[in-house]
Amino acid sequence: MGGDTATDDGAGPGRSEAPRGYVLADAPGPLDADLLRRLDAWWRAANYLSVGQIYLMDNPLLRRPLEPGDVKPRLLGHWGTTPGLNLVYAHANRVIRERDLDAIYVMGPGHGGPGPNACAWLEGTYTRRYPAIRQDEEGMRRLFRQFSFPGGVPSHVAPETPGSIHEGGELGYSLLHAYGAALDHPGLTVFCVVGDGEAETGPLAASWHVNKFVNPARDGAVLPILHLNGYKIANPTVLARIPDDDLQSLLRGYGYDPVPVVIGLDTNPAEAHQALAAAFDRCLDRIAGIQADARERGKGGLPRWPMVVLRSPKGWTGPRLVDGQQVEGTFRAHQVPMAEARDDTGHREVLEAWLRAYRPGELFDDAGRPVGELLGLPPAGDRRMSANPVANGGDLLRDLELPDFRDYGVEVAVPGRQRHSATRVLGAWLRDVVAANADQFLLFGPDEVASNRLSDVFAVTGREWMAATVDGDDHLSREGRVVEVLSEHLCQGLLEGYLLSGRHGLFTCYEAFIHIVDAMFNQHAKWLEAASAIPWRREIASLNYLLTSHVWRQDHNGATHQDPGFLDVVLNKKPDIVRVYLPPDANCLLSVADHCLRSRQYVNVIVAGKQPELTYLGVDEAVAHCTRGIGVWEWAGTERRGELPDLVLASAGDVPTLEALAAAALIREHLPEISVRFVNVVDLMRLLPAEEHPHGLSDVEFDALFTTDRPVVFAFHGYPWLVHRLTYRRHNHHNIHVRGYKENGTTTTPFDMVMLNDLDRYHLVADAIDRVPGLGPRAAGVRQAMVDARTSARAWTRQHGDDIPAVADWRWPG
Amino acid sequence: MGGDTATDDGAGPGRSEAPRGYVLADAPGPLDADLLRRLDAWWRAANYLSVGQIYLMDNPLLRRPLEPGDVKPRLLGHWGTTPGLNLVYAHANRVIRERDLDAIYVMGPGHGGPGPNACAWLEGTYTRRYPAIRQDEEGMRRLFRQFSFPGGVPSHVAPETPGSIHEGGELGYSLLHAYGAALDHPGLTVFCVVGDGEAETGPLAASWHVNKFVNPARDGAVLPILHLNGYKIANPTVLARIPDDDLQSLLRGYGYDPVPVVIGLDTNPAEAHQALAAAFDRCLDRIAGIQADARERGKGGLPRWPMVVLRSPKGWTGPRLVDGQQVEGTFRAHQVPMAEARDDTGHREVLEAWLRAYRPGELFDDAGRPVGELLGLPPAGDRRMSANPVANGGDLLRDLELPDFRDYGVEVAVPGRQRHSATRVLGAWLRDVVAANADQFLLFGPDEVASNRLSDVFAVTGREWMAATVDGDDHLSREGRVVEVLSEHLCQGLLEGYLLSGRHGLFTCYEAFIHIVDAMFNQHAKWLEAASAIPWRREIASLNYLLTSHVWRQDHNGATHQDPGFLDVVLNKKPDIVRVYLPPDANCLLSVADHCLRSRQYVNVIVAGKQPELTYLGVDEAVAHCTRGIGVWEWAGTERRGELPDLVLASAGDVPTLEALAAAALIREHLPEISVRFVNVVDLMRLLPAEEHPHGLSDVEFDALFTTDRPVVFAFHGYPWLVHRLTYRRHNHHNIHVRGYKENGTTTTPFDMVMLNDLDRYHLVADAIDRVPGLGPRAAGVRQAMVDARTSARAWTRQHGDDIPAVADWRWPG
Repeated sequence: MGGDTATDDGAGPGRSEAPRGYVLADAPGPLDADLLRRLDAWWRAANYLSVGQIYLMDNPLLRRPLEPGDVKPRLLGHWGTTPGLNLVYAHANRVIRERDLDAIYVMGPGHGGPGPNACAWLEGTYTRRYPAIRQDEEGMRRLFRQFSFPGGVPSHVAPETPGSIHEGGELGYSLLHAYGAALDHPGLTVFCVVGDGEAETGPLAASWHVNKFVNPARDGAVLPILHLNGYKIANPTVLARIPDDDLQSLLRGYGYDPVPVVIGLDTNPAEAHQALAAAFDRCLDRIAGIQADARERGKGGLPRWPMVVLRSPKGWTGPRLVDGQQVEGTFRAHQVPMAEARDDTGHREVLEAWLRAYRPGELFDDAGRPVGELLGLPPAGDRRMSANPVANGGDLLRDLELPDFRDYGVEVAVPGRQRHSATRVLGAWLRDVVAANADQFLLFGPDEVASNRLSDVFAVTGREWMAATVDGDDHLSREGRVVEVLSEHLCQGLLEGYLLSGRHGLFTCYEAFIHIVDAMFNQHAKWLEAASAIPWRREIASLNYLLTSHVWRQDHNGATHQDPGFLDVVLNKKPDIVRVYLPPDANCLLSVADHCLRSRQYVNVIVAGKQPELTYLGVDEAVAHCTRGIGVWEWAGTERRGELPDLVLASAGDVPTLEALAAAALIREHLPEISVRFVNVVDLMRLLPAEEHPHGLSDVEFDALFTTDRPVVFAFHGYPWLVHRLTYRRHNHHNIHVRGYKENGTTTTPFDMVMLNDLDRYHLVADAIDRVPGLGPRAAGVRQAMVDARTSARAWTRQHGDDIPAVADWRWPG
Repeated sequence: MGGDTATDDGAGPGRSEAPRGYVLADAPGPLDADLLRRLDAWWRAANYLSVGQIYLMDNPLLRRPLEPGDVKPRLLGHWGTTPGLNLVYAHANRVIRERDLDAIYVMGPGHGGPGPNACAWLEGTYTRRYPAIRQDEEGMRRLFRQFSFPGGVPSHVAPETPGSIHEGGELGYSLLHAYGAALDHPGLTVFCVVGDGEAETGPLAASWHVNKFVNPARDGAVLPILHLNGYKIANPTVLARIPDDDLQSLLRGYGYDPVPVVIGLDTNPAEAHQALAAAFDRCLDRIAGIQADARERGKGGLPRWPMVVLRSPKGWTGPRLVDGQQVEGTFRAHQVPMAEARDDTGHREVLEAWLRAYRPGELFDDAGRPVGELLGLPPAGDRRMSANPVANGGDLLRDLELPDFRDYGVEVAVPGRQRHSATRVLGAWLRDVVAANADQFLLFGPDEVASNRLSDVFAVTGREWMAATVDGDDHLSREGRVVEVLSEHLCQGLLEGYLLSGRHGLFTCYEAFIHIVDAMFNQHAKWLEAASAIPWRREIASLNYLLTSHVWRQDHNGATHQDPGFLDVVLNKKPDIVRVYLPPDANCLLSVADHCLRSRQYVNVIVAGKQPELTYLGVDEAVAHCTRGIGVWEWAGTERRGELPDLVLASAGDVPTLEALAAAALIREHLPEISVRFVNVVDLMRLLPAEEHPHGLSDVEFDALFTTDRPVVFAFHGYPWLVHRLTYRRHNHHNIHVRGYKENGTTTTPFDMVMLNDLDRYHLVADAIDRVPGLGPRAAGVRQAMVDARTSARAWTRQHGDDIPAVADWRWPG
């Protein structure tokens, strides 16, 4: 059927060689001859459809010889990894059917986007999701044309890809997404192909060890398939070139039992199919054994999970030689093997021969529909990996059971008199959130849940841990709802996988070190941006960050632990998706956290300190304030009814709010002639114009709070220019004077740290005096007194090693 | 000598137990009895000085019983890891002396800052660097008091620490810094302690494989010491709890030969010393053998480097029990074992007994000076690790030999007519930079040097690669000056180590994925900020990024590859340290790159595309333009002499500049009555006020370019609000209208991508028409024509899959 075509005298400066196709050999193994033949046919179909997507905009069934106009003008895509991804897909389908597995597929080498598109089309899911892409010739034409074409689908696995929870952009997170999906899904199997390029990244290298946090009694299984196709864009891969003994040793060291499958350029596909089928059977038998040991025989301890090491040529079944250079099995197969297929007749002939080598006539009927035996090969309904609801997590999402946070609030009879650790107060509520949602809520952190004062949760759960334990270990448990590992990458990636597969969670982290996952945050936010525009993608639970141990309380840790810039990274993403909250006290943190855990399809960033700080609002006031997101604290101001204030003192963040209040008290005491309005911002997005963000204030609302012409002194948690960026279009922007963090960290005490950044009460009062017009000469004296108070406070810290008591013990005077 | 004190009835609710001290046992091993005794004494001295730093502000020699006022009011520091760091220090000193090693010490668990401070003080270097911290009682008092004290030194290893190139803030980069320092330093040995907490991070997990890029003939050696002290803050560590077979297997899989040293709570220190000494001897003999094989016997291939696995109790020699809870050997030893030592008499008694258990009377003479045999133990002069110039890289820094970049410029007879790939042009110059600096310049990239069109460098060098090679590999070499590994973390960390130890380099990366190293950039910038304020730290070469494959040319890659936000991250750091360049064409890129490679102590970010783009400036014009950093392109404008223009069209970045020029041409053609000034920005820092950045324009200069009242339409490479943030204080800010990237990526063509972001020529013209006052009715027609042209261009891409020829082939009309 046209499979033996060869172009011995191809295009360009040298010789090109199209694939000759192949006849399946006899090969012993678990597949009977009929299944082997059908499975191979399905794989050929997926490969044909993949090549078609990369190259063709018309003539999908090759009804006539390829013409230049059939080939896309811009050839963009990645062939190299695709046949391997399709091979795994076909074999996963066999074992899903034979074992009735509930399975999804995570593709680390997500550049091979044509593969899962092809497989989903063969399974009928593509047409279900995109009715215009029918399972016929015209549908195939559209499937091909839309790929990496203006207005079409990306060349990578993406939110648009049915069955995917993993985008093929930035590399390194496949195992994390796979394991995250498996947690608390005891019936799930995740096939996860790890590319050997991706395997060089840090997050991937660390994530093999996630098996220490997977409980076979409670969680599902991940079957990692390390795909050694040997090359990246231009280089060989490390894992493909170390001695095989070292590779085996490495994977055993990670705690796995590696099962090798070796395919060479000249391996007959029948042998490859039998070898991979045998490896899958062995691994899935072993997984079933591990689960039965844990579930039926109560066996504890850390099992040795199986994995597959699949060595196969990059771009297998593609052109072996193009213009005299070897392509199949080399890095040259990475993207588009023949870049000139539109304009160069020789290249086009190789392309056509390559496509025909898959024997499309056997695979598709005259209408372009997959032949019956292909349609019958995949599992049915939700068992299809492209249709599994786990990979469209919103389909499975259940609301959290949330206890009423009001019951956990602290009493605030008078504002600013009593101190509470906001995170400790939150911890009690989180304890009961954990208890009430024992199969759908996890808390992640890099070994800081206790140090961040959330340790009340350990009254009802432990830290997930499957490795050895010794006397004296603190709350380790095989049933833990807290996942702690010293890698922000691992915390983030597991939580992403957990959310994308329909559950809820919270990631607590030191504020400065959340930058470690900037790139992962970016990618997840982009996933949400894209997914929100796809009708069949259901909304998932928001990704919630609690950033504590924040910039203002990093005294001894020094400059390395001071960085509030994650907010700047977050605000670069699409406003529909991102939310930033700076609750000023414990009750506000409760209110904000409750709101975030109820929300969908956002990234919520909450910044709140763990140290005991003053509380200002009773729980009902906190709810009202946080619901508004921004508001005037009348008790802290001295406005005269019916008049605009002389000064607006604004704050966002717990430490800045304390300093701004202390400044307000100083002004009231020393310069009562200045009437002050005190504005506190909890929801940072309120500062943006209403046109820019759904939470944004209208100009009328903004002006009502900040006036159009009075000086505003703004004490801000982060880098000061972020407030300017949010407010630069506002009428009164030129009057907004912001104090925040600037890079100058040194070793010091909390208040000295604030002073170093000119965010302290004394400086804020001086700022106010400098900006309020028409003050009398007495103001100059007050200003000098502020400077002197500052000087004394700094001298005190240097002498005593602690903050001056007048500041350390300060309370709102009432 | 007071070593057998025990407090059986300590403070608090339970029993506390101070260390009892120890008598050295007889233990066989490589150390003779005298050396064993002296080495142990040195270790005790380092431990005593470490505990003193954490706790004491006075009474350093315990001349009287500890009183509350002797103890710091805020106890901040990390004891747990410190005795292990000191143990390694002492033993490294032995082998440095015996083998005359040139060695430095990288401490992954850099929280143990008291350790290296203590060791440097014992070696005399601390006093050399900080003369007030004398080697006597008063100096010791100051050493103690300044630690983690206002105005003092951080509790972590930091730039202030003599002998360090590695900050103990964010974890995960120790091996990278160690290997980076070893590259091209054939005589160097780097002792690198990897903490078992740090070992859980992604960057560390991946960096074990860096041994594949180390050539024993050309590079120095790293001796990794994996320090299993078993716990993090509250959790056990993964590597300490996996089966020992798995750990051995893992490390062999990474390509090492692990040598174990096991110390238990009750191991006599004599046995520990002998075991560690034997392990060091075995490893250093093996390293010498590997180097001799490579250097004298020409042996190639990947050697199996040795490493040490040191298992020892966390907080060894500290209090075993505090308030009834075990501390020594548990996570409770992580920070300060007794937090109440100032106010709680029992805790203070334990502290005193603990200090006395080190027998300070044997270690320091009556003046507080280390006794003679301690002074005689370390190596002398630059052989001291605390004084080694490699760890103060500026001391060794030699200027690069830079060929005259003008010779590599492209001819530009007329602006905007010819296309050149800027990075390809740069590649020719880089080729000769590499060739001329064969021992002090390295190029790093995650497998993208060729795809980023810098492949000319492969005419003179290869890609460093020590693992196996096969036929068809492309430019792999054991002597390669290009280091490519698919991990931005590894590229960044190795380059940091290479720079910090006195050499030069360049990191080329996809723009979107540089976010992967946001956190590492932050930490390096903070190092530079701090180091710049330390008189004895010499300036090092700048960290240079070339970000290419940028946001505007990610057509098929889609949204995941679109992110220009690294610029926002960079600009949060101290202005003295950071520079951002957006060269508009090939010759400007040459000029900027030359400037960056000559600079010191900065982070330079260059963003430049790899695609062929129009060139505008001849090389001499480019030099003039880039030296100014910002300027008017008169040839592109239509200003009338002596009059202000009606409109300022500004641009920064290659693609935005092309679009802004096309807009200028359209305005000139269709609305010649609008006089236009064209301003191009190369050096983004010029936009900042002069008070904010050394490159900042004064207001007068800024106003001269942008006027105080004319509309400015600004086409910007990155997120648009960055320009607002930089210019919000300028007089004309309210007239600045910025177009840049906003999150909305989709699969499309280059010009369609520009149109999606309203950065296209048609939109810029419409923006101008909307903002220039007093235009006649004809302008409305032109505006509509622009909208129509846009609609046609979008329709074209959707039909043809490529950009409309009028745009794709556009050239400056001259």
